[in-house]
Amino acid sequence: MAAEIVHSRNESGSEPEQNLIDPAFALHRGGKMEVRATVPVRDADDLSLAYTPGVAKVCTAIAEHPELVHDYTWKSQVVAVVTDGTAVLGLGDIGPEASLPVMEGKAILFKQFGGVDAVPIALDCTAVDELVETIARMAPSFGGINLEDISAPRCFEVERKLQDRVDIPVFHDDQHGTAIVTLAALRNAAELTGRELGSLRAVISGSGAAGVAIAKILVEAGIGDVALADRKGIVHEGRDDLTQVKRLIAELTNKAKLTGSLADALEGADVFIGVSGGTVPEESVASMAKDSFIFAMANPDPEIHPDVAHKYAAVVATGRSDYPNQINNVLAFPGVFAGALQVRASRITEGMKIAAAEALAAVVADELSADKVIPSPFDERVAPAVTKAVAEAARAEGVARR
Amino acid sequence: MAAEIVHSRNESGSEPEQNLIDPAFALHRGGKMEVRATVPVRDADDLSLAYTPGVAKVCTAIAEHPELVHDYTWKSQVVAVVTDGTAVLGLGDIGPEASLPVMEGKAILFKQFGGVDAVPIALDCTAVDELVETIARMAPSFGGINLEDISAPRCFEVERKLQDRVDIPVFHDDQHGTAIVTLAALRNAAELTGRELGSLRAVISGSGAAGVAIAKILVEAGIGDVALADRKGIVHEGRDDLTQVKRLIAELTNKAKLTGSLADALEGADVFIGVSGGTVPEESVASMAKDSFIFAMANPDPEIHPDVAHKYAAVVATGRSDYPNQINNVLAFPGVFAGALQVRASRITEGMKIAAAEALAAVVADELSADKVIPSPFDERVAPAVTKAVAEAARAEGVARR
Repeated sequence: MAAEIVHSRNESGSEPEQNLIDPAFALHRGGKMEVRATVPVRDADDLSLAYTPGVAKVCTAIAEHPELVHDYTWKSQVVAVVTDGTAVLGLGDIGPEASLPVMEGKAILFKQFGGVDAVPIALDCTAVDELVETIARMAPSFGGINLEDISAPRCFEVERKLQDRVDIPVFHDDQHGTAIVTLAALRNAAELTGRELGSLRAVISGSGAAGVAIAKILVEAGIGDVALADRKGIVHEGRDDLTQVKRLIAELTNKAKLTGSLADALEGADVFIGVSGGTVPEESVASMAKDSFIFAMANPDPEIHPDVAHKYAAVVATGRSDYPNQINNVLAFPGVFAGALQVRASRITEGMKIAAAEALAAVVADELSADKVIPSPFDERVAPAVTKAVAEAARAEGVARR
Repeated sequence: MAAEIVHSRNESGSEPEQNLIDPAFALHRGGKMEVRATVPVRDADDLSLAYTPGVAKVCTAIAEHPELVHDYTWKSQVVAVVTDGTAVLGLGDIGPEASLPVMEGKAILFKQFGGVDAVPIALDCTAVDELVETIARMAPSFGGINLEDISAPRCFEVERKLQDRVDIPVFHDDQHGTAIVTLAALRNAAELTGRELGSLRAVISGSGAAGVAIAKILVEAGIGDVALADRKGIVHEGRDDLTQVKRLIAELTNKAKLTGSLADALEGADVFIGVSGGTVPEESVASMAKDSFIFAMANPDPEIHPDVAHKYAAVVATGRSDYPNQINNVLAFPGVFAGALQVRASRITEGMKIAAAEALAAVVADELSADKVIPSPFDERVAPAVTKAVAEAARAEGVARR
């Protein structure tokens, strides 16, 4: 029967002509995922265990001992990949339905790389409190919530308020996934060039979800100084146009009290981190400190082309798969959730994120080169290493429940 | 990695001792389902089609042509199995977490019997408007909503209000699944004994979700007369203690203007349908018309024991798998949703439900006997037959979108 239905959903004739020639459309026909039973459902005996009457005993046990839900359901194995469709890839606010292919893609990456089941949930609301309330109500069904492609600055508030409401980890991957992988690459770049994190001054271009989270994790990890630049220039405490989140960034960063433009910040800087999609002129790149690190992560067009970056920098990374050192979130989120779920963590702390970055960096510690400060997304050592580090950090930080 | 994590979630030592000896607990360890990719995710080429950058074209196409979401995601293949945990099996209000084993069971039955993917969503709210709002916000992610184990009378209002809000089918299985299978069995019982539905007077004991839905479908299908009895006796227009739903039932049923107790209603009745969990004394059974039909569906203890029922009735059915003629919802819901999804129905009409019952009855039309008025749950002809009938009825009723 299943085969029949799969066949029938492949029969529609409504697609635009492009679909006939583009392999991405052919691959997406009927979606990219399915649900499967992990127990037999072949006969009445199977049914009497997996469904009534056998299931009643399991329900009663969970009602009496709520923690047993983790043992006897898939809760602690499944993450909701939740979006409102407002900041999807570089496409912007395309709405919940149009975001589903990305959420399905994310879900299958969770499974492939972390062994974590994941379910795409695209929500038809965008107000912060509505998102928080809706996701909190769904929380009993899941072991974790991966927020995805929710536009800034709402994403910050949604994550904070939701984590205050629920006792399972909430993780906005556009923020923290990117931040973890960036920190890992930065640690290895410093190691490779014999420098201490505390000696480095970094400049981040872009004040969206990724930029803010990278700024926070770099400060937390002890980098010397960080300046974050938005479209109006360096974020500093003297500006009167800052959102709540940027005011916090102004407090946390910019010990040097820099003001002015991105170009001003880059003069003498050791690290450029681009998560903006803009373009940095070559003279600014040339004004950076010697042997700089340039992580130009805009996709598909890096803020600084790798060919230009290599003229000045010791280490170059991008968001693209066709250059070395790809800063790819898939290096982080599967292991982060697998580790958190393994110990039934109630949240994902800063310490767990830093532990994830350290573990990720350590995977290639013995094979470091300018073209390998971060593992390949297909390096099979990554997810187990991140999983283990995150689980241990959760225990150390007191947020583990087993 | 997946195997490792599965292993790790089997290591908990927190279970009560009963779990060591009960096979239901052993089977439920780690849950009963998983998510799987249906496309390859082995290398960078795969990723560039299933995820960025390839996925962006698919997202853009859906944003421009919203109906393409049905072609290029799993939306039209996946149903949310949604509960608030207030009326779970015979256990009552055990809350969302404790209801999850039932929802997972339902989800795997959807897949096994109908080839339909399904995701358990147990919600942490119980107010009608909160349930409606929450589920409506999730609707972009799903092709249908199967409501489950939500207590009466809220279930009626949730279903009606939610269906008014969303353009995908909403189906409360405790109501309509039971009603469809009951009608199918009743049609075949009438066929077997050479009677017309219009000549039969039926009495339903139980005014919960199932009782109300059975009363409605029997009236819709043209049965002669129906009386529904709740704990206070026959529901009739003269009562001043009726809920809104029961007032509607009083208008729709009871042409004979019966008043009094269940026993009064049963005198001379042709059909008894038990969905109450009470007990009917043998003298009431004896007072029914000759060659009656007794469908005593309470589980595990039928309202009338089959041994007693057989002394008076021509056809006996129960909800149990260890007697003939099991009235089991799994005969209906997988095919109902498979058919509705196949044609992208916007709702499930009364006509589609009756078509499902007719198709279900027809499966065993050539092999009817007193012990076989309804197919076995494992009869492989059932789901395809119901699927086809429901899809055709959706087209005939103008609610199909392909």
